[in-house]
Amino acid sequence: MPLNETHAPDLRSWVPSANVADSDFPIQNLPFGVFRRPGETARTGVAIGEEIFDLQAGVANGLFEGEALRAAEAAGGEDLTPLLALEPGPASALRRRLSELLRDAGPARAEAEALASRLLVRMTDAEMVLPVRVRQFSDMCVSTFHIGRFAGNDERGQPITPPVFRTLPVGYDGRASSVVISGTPVRRPNGTWLAEGATTPQFGPEPRQDYELEIGIWFGGPGNALGEPISIQNASRSIFGYCLLNDWSARGIQMWEAMLGPFLGKSLATTISPWIVTAEALAPFRAPALARPEDDPQTPRQLWCEHDQTEGGIAIVLEALISSAAMVRDGFSPHRLCQTDFRQMYWTPAQMLAHHASNGCAFAAGDLLGSGTCSGPSEDAAACLFEKLLAGPWTLPTDEVRTWLEDEDTVILRGRAEREGYVGIGFGEATGKLLPAHALHTSA
Amino acid sequence: MPLNETHAPDLRSWVPSANVADSDFPIQNLPFGVFRRPGETARTGVAIGEEIFDLQAGVANGLFEGEALRAAEAAGGEDLTPLLALEPGPASALRRRLSELLRDAGPARAEAEALASRLLVRMTDAEMVLPVRVRQFSDMCVSTFHIGRFAGNDERGQPITPPVFRTLPVGYDGRASSVVISGTPVRRPNGTWLAEGATTPQFGPEPRQDYELEIGIWFGGPGNALGEPISIQNASRSIFGYCLLNDWSARGIQMWEAMLGPFLGKSLATTISPWIVTAEALAPFRAPALARPEDDPQTPRQLWCEHDQTEGGIAIVLEALISSAAMVRDGFSPHRLCQTDFRQMYWTPAQMLAHHASNGCAFAAGDLLGSGTCSGPSEDAAACLFEKLLAGPWTLPTDEVRTWLEDEDTVILRGRAEREGYVGIGFGEATGKLLPAHALHTSA
Repeated sequence: MPLNETHAPDLRSWVPSANVADSDFPIQNLPFGVFRRPGETARTGVAIGEEIFDLQAGVANGLFEGEALRAAEAAGGEDLTPLLALEPGPASALRRRLSELLRDAGPARAEAEALASRLLVRMTDAEMVLPVRVRQFSDMCVSTFHIGRFAGNDERGQPITPPVFRTLPVGYDGRASSVVISGTPVRRPNGTWLAEGATTPQFGPEPRQDYELEIGIWFGGPGNALGEPISIQNASRSIFGYCLLNDWSARGIQMWEAMLGPFLGKSLATTISPWIVTAEALAPFRAPALARPEDDPQTPRQLWCEHDQTEGGIAIVLEALISSAAMVRDGFSPHRLCQTDFRQMYWTPAQMLAHHASNGCAFAAGDLLGSGTCSGPSEDAAACLFEKLLAGPWTLPTDEVRTWLEDEDTVILRGRAEREGYVGIGFGEATGKLLPAHALHTSA
Repeated sequence: MPLNETHAPDLRSWVPSANVADSDFPIQNLPFGVFRRPGETARTGVAIGEEIFDLQAGVANGLFEGEALRAAEAAGGEDLTPLLALEPGPASALRRRLSELLRDAGPARAEAEALASRLLVRMTDAEMVLPVRVRQFSDMCVSTFHIGRFAGNDERGQPITPPVFRTLPVGYDGRASSVVISGTPVRRPNGTWLAEGATTPQFGPEPRQDYELEIGIWFGGPGNALGEPISIQNASRSIFGYCLLNDWSARGIQMWEAMLGPFLGKSLATTISPWIVTAEALAPFRAPALARPEDDPQTPRQLWCEHDQTEGGIAIVLEALISSAAMVRDGFSPHRLCQTDFRQMYWTPAQMLAHHASNGCAFAAGDLLGSGTCSGPSEDAAACLFEKLLAGPWTLPTDEVRTWLEDEDTVILRGRAEREGYVGIGFGEATGKLLPAHALHTSA
């Protein structure tokens, strides 16, 4: 995707909080989301610093025209699906116009700044809601390091993966009704699992509750009809944007039920960050597809194209943090569980989508793909506890010794794209606090 | 579910085709569906013999009141979701009223028959469309005979199944966007599979295209919030009705990709029959839950309740038939592939739902569960080709020798509930014709 004036590193905004160093939402980002002020219906907006630009206020005040207006009007409801369903042009025009309106030097500043009190809502005055009614959620598994952590390395020093892993991006269909917005508490599930040393399973609160640090991929465009694949050439422009995604995983349930893959071990909850960081905003941070180790199978023809090989990856530094009840009580900052880079995935987002649609599976706006756990090679880059625990229990700043998640733990995901010579952009947060399991009925 | 006057075996309709022996849609059935006449928008209706009762014509002519009217008005759009989302009462009241209106003896006959030309649409004058926009589709696996066909029997004479199978109803999340209405052609997928004897996979048209004969289960009621399970006591009244379901299965793709369970091997298409046969209509055909063989694990407490044990099963005779291009050309009737009984499933529909929601997974109207392949113990009851082929290739009346499905084959599912002393009811058909795979792009 070519860079344009919206990516220029010297752009600054007249919204002061957008110019703070390391802000997630400088004027180069402009992600879309849906917010709600107390007692009002939800509205669509764009993050700028610590403010939200109210898109319908922009429409009402006549700030948009042409393709930009078409995009803003598509975002006129309580949900961004109609915006995502457009071809990429209108959203791109809207981005350019928002950049003009919000930059500190330029002809549109005066017009916008005069309306600031009508256009801008402080993030602290609003709650974020799901940006899109999730139509379908599927989850891929594309980190060799995630899989290889359990199996070790082969004689080439490469993570050992099942044969299928290097021939296609493995995935499974998940549960859309389980996708919740950052901040939603997550209930520890009851389920069927095998206690250590037991040979028959029991039903009760999941003892091995885990998180998984992932990137979420939002499908964009009019979609394909059932039976019609999406080629690798067309796949990248069918991705509207990205978010953070915590694929909460109940390992006891998952391991016992696994005959047909992940099911109830996953459908308890999937937490996403509220802002859709557009593929266009991420253009400066594109990277070549991961180089395949020598002796790996060649990239399959149906998943190979020039532009995906040269810029199909994305450099996004991801981290997961935890905050226990005791940490909150004693005033500790969240503790980092891992740090990893989305660039190290074996398959690109376009490859994930092209593979997923290769059998004719139908996609439309509202579809969300998870990348799978984004683990990297180092021990610090183990992006779930299942991997982290291979090195044994770990310790919080409060000296609490931990294995799996405990009730009242909050897991926080963060992500940020950086590149020398460009202004870095962030994803905000995907957080969730684990609530105790419901008590089982003990009466007959 | 108690029987009432709508189930009475002596009821006959003034619609003559409803009284024909072995009609799928006698007055005791009254299933809901969505139909469209050429050039019109879709409308909701109820099958009676070879006619469709137009529900909104009934509303417009003042035939309903009270709870029955509430149900008919909920079905006022192009989709039955709002009807399914109600508590069971209104749909039951509507059924009682429809039964009064359509029966040949009774006070409401004159009123309805006088309006017949406005109320009734011949099935041959309409096409059926999806009755519900499928929100989520998941598929279970609850036939010991399906699994055991591959593994053989144990020393008790019971099918050998993985340990998990007898401790909970195994399942996986599927793809809602792949669900199509009976009659929709199905495209053979391209995908990645291992040819016999090969060690590296290839990408191309699926060589082992299969069908699976299943029952579809339509969720009904207001649904549960994420994190709140549905108890086995409440599960059966959260099932609105049933349909036939062909879970088209690409075995080559499925076998190669299987690391995280079924995915692209399944999401090519899932065909359902158009009529939702209500749980209430099936009340006379309920059967006890399958008796567990001695030495099997006990029914888990969270999946056990008295009424599900005594009437959680349903006796539905199911069959799959095939019609090849040559059979059509030469005038042969469809050829039976298998005949089986839904009563032989190891887990009941209520157990499938209660298990699925046991971790707090959220359900709502629009959710569809597949039962998994409904195979029975006999060789004739192998409800997919993967099982049938264990006995070797099979032959069509045209002397065509077959293994997997071939292009232009049509697969037809039928189902019928019968019980001594009651009028049997049918499901109509779920049919699909297999189209050739798309040609691969051979250019670079």
